[in-house]
Amino acid sequence: MPSAALIKEFEAVVGKDNVFTSEADRQSYSYDSAVLEAVVPALVVRPTTTEQLGKVVRLCNENGNPITVRGAGTNLSGGTIPDPREGIVILTNSLNRIIEINEEDLYAVVEPGVVTAKFAAEVAKRGLFYPPDPGSQAVSTLGGNVAENAGGLRGLKYGVTKDYVMGIEFFDVNGGLVKTGSRTVKCVTGYNLAGLMVASEGTLGVFSNIVLKLVPPPQASKAMMAVFDDVNKASEAVAGIIAAHVVPCTLEFMDQATIRYVDDFTKAGLPRDAQAILLIEVDGHAGQVAEDAEKVEKVLNKVGATEIKVAKDAAEKFKLWEARRNALPALARAKPTTVLEDATVPRSKIPAMVKAINDIAAKYNISIGTFGHAGDGNLHPTILCDRRDKHEFERVEHAVDEIFDVALSLHGTLSGEHGIGMAKSKWMEKETSKATIEFSRNMKRAIDPKYILNPGKIIGA
Amino acid sequence: MPSAALIKEFEAVVGKDNVFTSEADRQSYSYDSAVLEAVVPALVVRPTTTEQLGKVVRLCNENGNPITVRGAGTNLSGGTIPDPREGIVILTNSLNRIIEINEEDLYAVVEPGVVTAKFAAEVAKRGLFYPPDPGSQAVSTLGGNVAENAGGLRGLKYGVTKDYVMGIEFFDVNGGLVKTGSRTVKCVTGYNLAGLMVASEGTLGVFSNIVLKLVPPPQASKAMMAVFDDVNKASEAVAGIIAAHVVPCTLEFMDQATIRYVDDFTKAGLPRDAQAILLIEVDGHAGQVAEDAEKVEKVLNKVGATEIKVAKDAAEKFKLWEARRNALPALARAKPTTVLEDATVPRSKIPAMVKAINDIAAKYNISIGTFGHAGDGNLHPTILCDRRDKHEFERVEHAVDEIFDVALSLHGTLSGEHGIGMAKSKWMEKETSKATIEFSRNMKRAIDPKYILNPGKIIGA
Repeated sequence: MPSAALIKEFEAVVGKDNVFTSEADRQSYSYDSAVLEAVVPALVVRPTTTEQLGKVVRLCNENGNPITVRGAGTNLSGGTIPDPREGIVILTNSLNRIIEINEEDLYAVVEPGVVTAKFAAEVAKRGLFYPPDPGSQAVSTLGGNVAENAGGLRGLKYGVTKDYVMGIEFFDVNGGLVKTGSRTVKCVTGYNLAGLMVASEGTLGVFSNIVLKLVPPPQASKAMMAVFDDVNKASEAVAGIIAAHVVPCTLEFMDQATIRYVDDFTKAGLPRDAQAILLIEVDGHAGQVAEDAEKVEKVLNKVGATEIKVAKDAAEKFKLWEARRNALPALARAKPTTVLEDATVPRSKIPAMVKAINDIAAKYNISIGTFGHAGDGNLHPTILCDRRDKHEFERVEHAVDEIFDVALSLHGTLSGEHGIGMAKSKWMEKETSKATIEFSRNMKRAIDPKYILNPGKIIGA
Repeated sequence: MPSAALIKEFEAVVGKDNVFTSEADRQSYSYDSAVLEAVVPALVVRPTTTEQLGKVVRLCNENGNPITVRGAGTNLSGGTIPDPREGIVILTNSLNRIIEINEEDLYAVVEPGVVTAKFAAEVAKRGLFYPPDPGSQAVSTLGGNVAENAGGLRGLKYGVTKDYVMGIEFFDVNGGLVKTGSRTVKCVTGYNLAGLMVASEGTLGVFSNIVLKLVPPPQASKAMMAVFDDVNKASEAVAGIIAAHVVPCTLEFMDQATIRYVDDFTKAGLPRDAQAILLIEVDGHAGQVAEDAEKVEKVLNKVGATEIKVAKDAAEKFKLWEARRNALPALARAKPTTVLEDATVPRSKIPAMVKAINDIAAKYNISIGTFGHAGDGNLHPTILCDRRDKHEFERVEHAVDEIFDVALSLHGTLSGEHGIGMAKSKWMEKETSKATIEFSRNMKRAIDPKYILNPGKIIGA
């Protein structure tokens, strides 16, 4: 617990009501959505203006208190777990103003605590579109999305959060305001620090505001489900769609285990005997949508989908996507612990990856349901287990190791969108190199000499 | 000149034929396309493999020789001008292999010395599309494009080089190989060092290879020219097109001065009395193109274009774009010195920016032709002068100062696509902040302690 004098200093900056010292309050911010040990922070501080935010950062640095900035705590890799050495959690939920939505120049300026879905809705009201749609968008914050480079279902066609960050103003560890990027589409003034901040998981600076790119929305869309009696056929369909030069806005995969868990959960009458289903949506100009949908159906028939369901209207489309929306909730309720991974491979390697995941599940006698974003090779092998069962959890850890090894051997990556955080930093060198870790640590040391910006994340302690 | 012993060491790495010591050879690499003093390097080295490249970097660092990596030397901000303190130029023109074009997974892996247009052509042969099209693409290299985050005409719809960099392997200053990014669309493993490398102008590392994103090409396109008797109407047209949710692939602007220089040069019969012309091209699905073109024409008529010429076929389209292609050559031949700027503003500020440029030209009694990418606010005010005329050149320097001041006051940026280099580093703090410069310098010092990676660029000496 920080000294009474230090607490008073924080109170002087943000007001008494925004400094939380009680055990119960601090407990609430001790964990995130990763399967990792909770760490209770020494203090929780909630700035209500960005000016206060800068002062809080400076105060923490002066006193050597590690900072973990927290939006909604939906992080899946432990990025929002505080530091055990007098760690302070800074909440962004009062920094939730949409400062500007510029319809002429297609950008918005936001504070870091704005909730993703709320922002997307405000943008939509003005006839525009903010595409990034991480699974947690209903509660996640834009600051968190940027810090993690959040992905989502639309990655293949629309890219990820990184592709929408035009500029960032952030506080350096001394509370100085660093300005990077611009309100213009093109900007090469200085280092691309906005690019560096994306996915830096709070370890290099604290966001004050973010400039996000907006685009015109698609005019039309069409969704369909395809059922396969063979995982390879599903994957051939994905390759065939890309080869036909169709870029669907979403192209989702579910394996048999996931289909069955979802069907148990929803009683939706899903094809339980299918080895895989694909959920496909194309969007854009109405003429293009019709043509793309036709091309997709042709590919699906050619590779031998056993069934193709095309949604005829918005209600049918909603129903079609229900299976996908329920994938994670259905899997999560099957067992006490859900280990949601996001090893990612070039899309042509999906059959090899799915086969390897199933082999690994059999080898370690554990349950894995796999679903995910087939279009961009971003799979979510989801391990269903009980963490209290030590023997089982050891097998789970071995399985995760092997999943990463396979992903890397297929030219893939440890993490497509969930971040490295604390959960995966030990594997970092395997994917990159010793020089990469040293380069990163050197840079971090220079930017944060006291190592107080979310320590222990990405490159370890 | 480095010692004979050191030259021998370089020769041992790259072979005798790839170390250039003669005055004539060194002179050839003393300048680039910026209007700045030439600096003759102490030595020029041409590695023929990336392994050699890493060894050359290490050798330079060990000996404290500043490195300037050079592709085609088309840099417009002095980024390829060597350092006067025993600077060594490393040529990438023998590192020009396209390692892979992956049609299934829509990426390519290239060495840094591959020429942009050659790469785009190879990609096109396989039915795919690499959109970034900087003006110098016929000779510029992909490594240089990435180091500068090169833009081009397609920025508005397709983005810039940054948006196509999926991964980079680069040598740190010690010759260690740093691996960042992936062959997958989604990757959040470690810091976004690939993002940091983009636009870093050779000051943080030396590229070994680059993974670039490819997309399917548009099916169809349509081009037109619109003539205006008032710059504001041209700008209203740009705003109207965006408001109609049309995103043209190119949306180019030329002012009266540029039109007249081009017409003098080409005798193409351009509308010499027009205050401005817009050159507009829409692309995509044929149905969308037809609809977009119709919307654009409607906007052009509404704001009062005095003439609209729609290209009926490829030959007419080629002719239409000839005016734009000739803008820079026509301006460049008017006077001995061409100062090509790229101050960039949010697109809605174009009328204010064009007016300010004309006022500044009048105030300092100098000739400025302005053309550029209206869709993304990236204008090229081009000052025509004679550098040997000291009095005039002083006025030019004042004018450039004022152009930047106006751009910044309009929420714009110093440089949309030409880079900071040596030419603009003195203005950096004005756009950003003291903390930004300090943050950048700290980072640079940690990554390059001896300050040998292209010193003097971006953040000054």
